[in-house]
Amino acid sequence: MTGEPVGTRPVVTVTLNPAIDQTITVDALKPGSVHRAKAVRHNAGGKGVNVASCLADWGTPVVATGLLGTGNAAPFEALFAAKGIADAFLRLPGETRVNIKIADLAANDTTDINLPGLSADADAVRRVRETVLGLVEPGVPVLLAGSLPDGVPADAYATLTAELTAAGCRVVLDSSGAPLAAALASTGALPYCIKPNRHELEDWAGRPLPTDADLLDAARELHRRGVAVVVVSLGADGALFVGAGGALHGRLPPVAALSTVGAGDAMVAGLIAGFQQGGGQQGDGLETVARLSVAFAAAKLGRFGPNLPDAATVRALAAQVALSTLA
Amino acid sequence: MTGEPVGTRPVVTVTLNPAIDQTITVDALKPGSVHRAKAVRHNAGGKGVNVASCLADWGTPVVATGLLGTGNAAPFEALFAAKGIADAFLRLPGETRVNIKIADLAANDTTDINLPGLSADADAVRRVRETVLGLVEPGVPVLLAGSLPDGVPADAYATLTAELTAAGCRVVLDSSGAPLAAALASTGALPYCIKPNRHELEDWAGRPLPTDADLLDAARELHRRGVAVVVVSLGADGALFVGAGGALHGRLPPVAALSTVGAGDAMVAGLIAGFQQGGGQQGDGLETVARLSVAFAAAKLGRFGPNLPDAATVRALAAQVALSTLA
Repeated sequence: MTGEPVGTRPVVTVTLNPAIDQTITVDALKPGSVHRAKAVRHNAGGKGVNVASCLADWGTPVVATGLLGTGNAAPFEALFAAKGIADAFLRLPGETRVNIKIADLAANDTTDINLPGLSADADAVRRVRETVLGLVEPGVPVLLAGSLPDGVPADAYATLTAELTAAGCRVVLDSSGAPLAAALASTGALPYCIKPNRHELEDWAGRPLPTDADLLDAARELHRRGVAVVVVSLGADGALFVGAGGALHGRLPPVAALSTVGAGDAMVAGLIAGFQQGGGQQGDGLETVARLSVAFAAAKLGRFGPNLPDAATVRALAAQVALSTLA
Repeated sequence: MTGEPVGTRPVVTVTLNPAIDQTITVDALKPGSVHRAKAVRHNAGGKGVNVASCLADWGTPVVATGLLGTGNAAPFEALFAAKGIADAFLRLPGETRVNIKIADLAANDTTDINLPGLSADADAVRRVRETVLGLVEPGVPVLLAGSLPDGVPADAYATLTAELTAAGCRVVLDSSGAPLAAALASTGALPYCIKPNRHELEDWAGRPLPTDADLLDAARELHRRGVAVVVVSLGADGALFVGAGGALHGRLPPVAALSTVGAGDAMVAGLIAGFQQGGGQQGDGLETVARLSVAFAAAKLGRFGPNLPDAATVRALAAQVALSTLA
């Protein structure tokens, strides 16, 4: 690990369906009555935004793009300004979706109300693609992450992956459901890297994958089909990594977990940081990628939200990641 | 009623503590669970904003000023653009307060969560005052309306009233509690017009005012102290009007009430429309003011929110307002 990215162009993260988490704290939620909130907090989120946040903390130059509503872009703009993330989001009329979380201090629970978000269309995705193509150079990792907004066809990631791969980008895709299935079933280029969890991999395989050996088989199948690096996130058990160099299991070093929110996104950021440091291409590179991605996830557990401690702390954790080679 | 305003400068409304009503519709609110909202609606509000909205519908040129948070100004900007209201709001960092109304379709009730809003200070009020002074000419009605944000001293309206009166403005004050009490106890100029309801007038008087005669006595007392036009809103019973020309009771013409939200603000808009048409100054003018203000309130009842039908409809209602002279 050199600490220096290989490319000169920043990493690009694409978030077509970002979200704002609005956490409202009340003494006790009583339906039908009037409450005065004790506090309210807005967190700009969405997988690609969270990954950009972690990469920025690590010191990687990063451009965030995708689709934002003009009506409530402020929390995103504040985050990008605070972290030095370049803002290349397209603005659409309307509001980015908001997920309200009413934190009830008396009941010690949370009531979630997920609001409807933007509608978009294939043309908006085309404009995002043009933005990305104007930002990248061959070899640059481009992350496509999260769900798709209403109105965008389910094959949007399949199409974007083919187009960006043709331009020389290394496409990292972190999605689920129909958009992931379409990207993996595409007759065009498959993503360079994906990071399903057990459930997402089972969805793709169409069968339960109860053991690590089952997961490894499915990951190897995806690798054979053309996904250069397949990572299966296992929560507290770390992750499996399958690439040209073989297969590894990376286990988390011991950390005190404050919050698991955003840990998966931190892992994706670590993958991309590993790719930027030359990992992923050859056999040895997979170890770099595995150490960094598990370390990013572990480091994030000590923070609220998708934020990393200083790079020295992350590097120390990376050195402590327990790697085992899988047959 | 000429339909033409007397002055050449627009009316100014000042809203130091505006609010957004965010109405979220859910099938059934169950604390501790996850909901997908069926709809969400944002309404830019606050008394002065609502009055500006009604005045704009009536065709009166109007400038809205006060304090807005940069974080969620969009609903205000959309309203001002739609209605042709000039936007002279100062922007402060942060968010204008939001009043969340969770409309539960199953229970047919509403759960309110009022979020904290902006903090401001006397300096922000001073900047608003400078804005207003740059907009007005002698005789122009200036409305000071609503509550005060955290951090603004309770005598802010008293000070503003004195300063704006010195500049020749006719100050209409629609507030309550300590800010209203301070403005009415001021050793400086008193407002040109106030529009308390029964409860607000009782607060000022420090005693119950159970009958219309009691209300009239209190209103006359305020008039004697220097408030040129005292209006006491009585809900479905219309309003009492006390001025130099005597006292009137204006009763609503029969209308089908769709929503009472904003009816009081529509009444204030009607008062100001009346002042712009020469009402209020002399004896006959009180009738103009009374007809228009009751007609505005009645016209609004047929609409959701602070919106008026076309001017011909309002004029027809004004002609139907039943006025009685009070001894």
